[in-house]
Amino acid sequence: MAATGGRRCRRLEGETARAVLANADTLLFDCDGVLWRGEAALSGAPAALGRLAAAGKRLCYVTNNSSRTRVAYTEKLRRLGFPPAEPRHVFGSAFCAARYLRQALPPGAAAYVLGGPALSAELEAAGIPHLGPGPAALPGPAPADWAQAPLEPAVRAVLVGFDEHFSYAKLCQALRYLLRGPDCLLVGTNRDNRLPLEGGSAIP
Amino acid sequence: MAATGGRRCRRLEGETARAVLANADTLLFDCDGVLWRGEAALSGAPAALGRLAAAGKRLCYVTNNSSRTRVAYTEKLRRLGFPPAEPRHVFGSAFCAARYLRQALPPGAAAYVLGGPALSAELEAAGIPHLGPGPAALPGPAPADWAQAPLEPAVRAVLVGFDEHFSYAKLCQALRYLLRGPDCLLVGTNRDNRLPLEGGSAIP
Repeated sequence: MAATGGRRCRRLEGETARAVLANADTLLFDCDGVLWRGEAALSGAPAALGRLAAAGKRLCYVTNNSSRTRVAYTEKLRRLGFPPAEPRHVFGSAFCAARYLRQALPPGAAAYVLGGPALSAELEAAGIPHLGPGPAALPGPAPADWAQAPLEPAVRAVLVGFDEHFSYAKLCQALRYLLRGPDCLLVGTNRDNRLPLEGGSAIP
Repeated sequence: MAATGGRRCRRLEGETARAVLANADTLLFDCDGVLWRGEAALSGAPAALGRLAAAGKRLCYVTNNSSRTRVAYTEKLRRLGFPPAEPRHVFGSAFCAARYLRQALPPGAAAYVLGGPALSAELEAAGIPHLGPGPAALPGPAPADWAQAPLEPAVRAVLVGFDEHFSYAKLCQALRYLLRGPDCLLVGTNRDNRLPLEGGSAIP
């Protein structure tokens, strides 16, 4: 597809497609629903990318899915039969969020994370202290307990990504960090409301 | 406050307030943030309602908070020093949702509930089979497991209310019921994004 101005895209075919490809050194690919669904590569995708790599094109991967580190995406590409890739050829939203927070936060500031191990690993690599990943229990039986649980003073951002342990307890803590004042950033890795999986199924 | 057309309200004071009250047999009160915050009655509220009850007014209570049954609201009113009330004087969104589903669902249809024991009790009282309240674990380690967990064939509605056990696992199941087709209703008890508590604090 190629942008034709505004938000409209146009499918490239035949001569036009060949001409555009001949002039391109680097190709960027979305991942979920484009290269694969869950653990199943889309039919023909690995072979097509293999031909592009053999023709000397540089292949890069862009994804707003925050559930994997850049290294994990290279492993998934290999596992599904795509051409070999290096972490520097992958730009994912976990990596992007960690880079952004490294610029946006003052030194020593921490992030409260509604997200999984990949977000945690990319924050670690960027040197950003953080807390939150993994399961969390409500801090007592009554709403007044939930509203008074300890908060970490260093937190200056709430980072939201894919989180299989997302819960009311974590939402409560996130809201309380954000209500402390306008100097607490709210950063989301993407706005997708579902992730396409094998066989047409989907998860939130 | 009195509606003056459109969305504008006007504060009633002095003579006007007395005239409006003199003409009213029944008064409807919102609850959270109006009569109480958490377990603390707002200053002066129990005494004011006591005077209105003594003057022969019928007091009713309307709330979009789905975390209590009608009976539980009468107990809370008593506990906080408000005039005695009966369940039939309380119109809460748990009760309302159960009444609505009794009309909207075909016989034998069930509801999947993202909500707490009060929603469950009001559905029970309305004779609507349901499942979902309480904690839920993800049905396996991988997204493909989450997308293939058993679904109850009778479910024809997803009902969303206040749920301290709200989790990614439950969201996943709710989405899957809704994706089965257009004959599955999505019913929410309210759109509030926070609940006011004692001392100015709040929870989601």
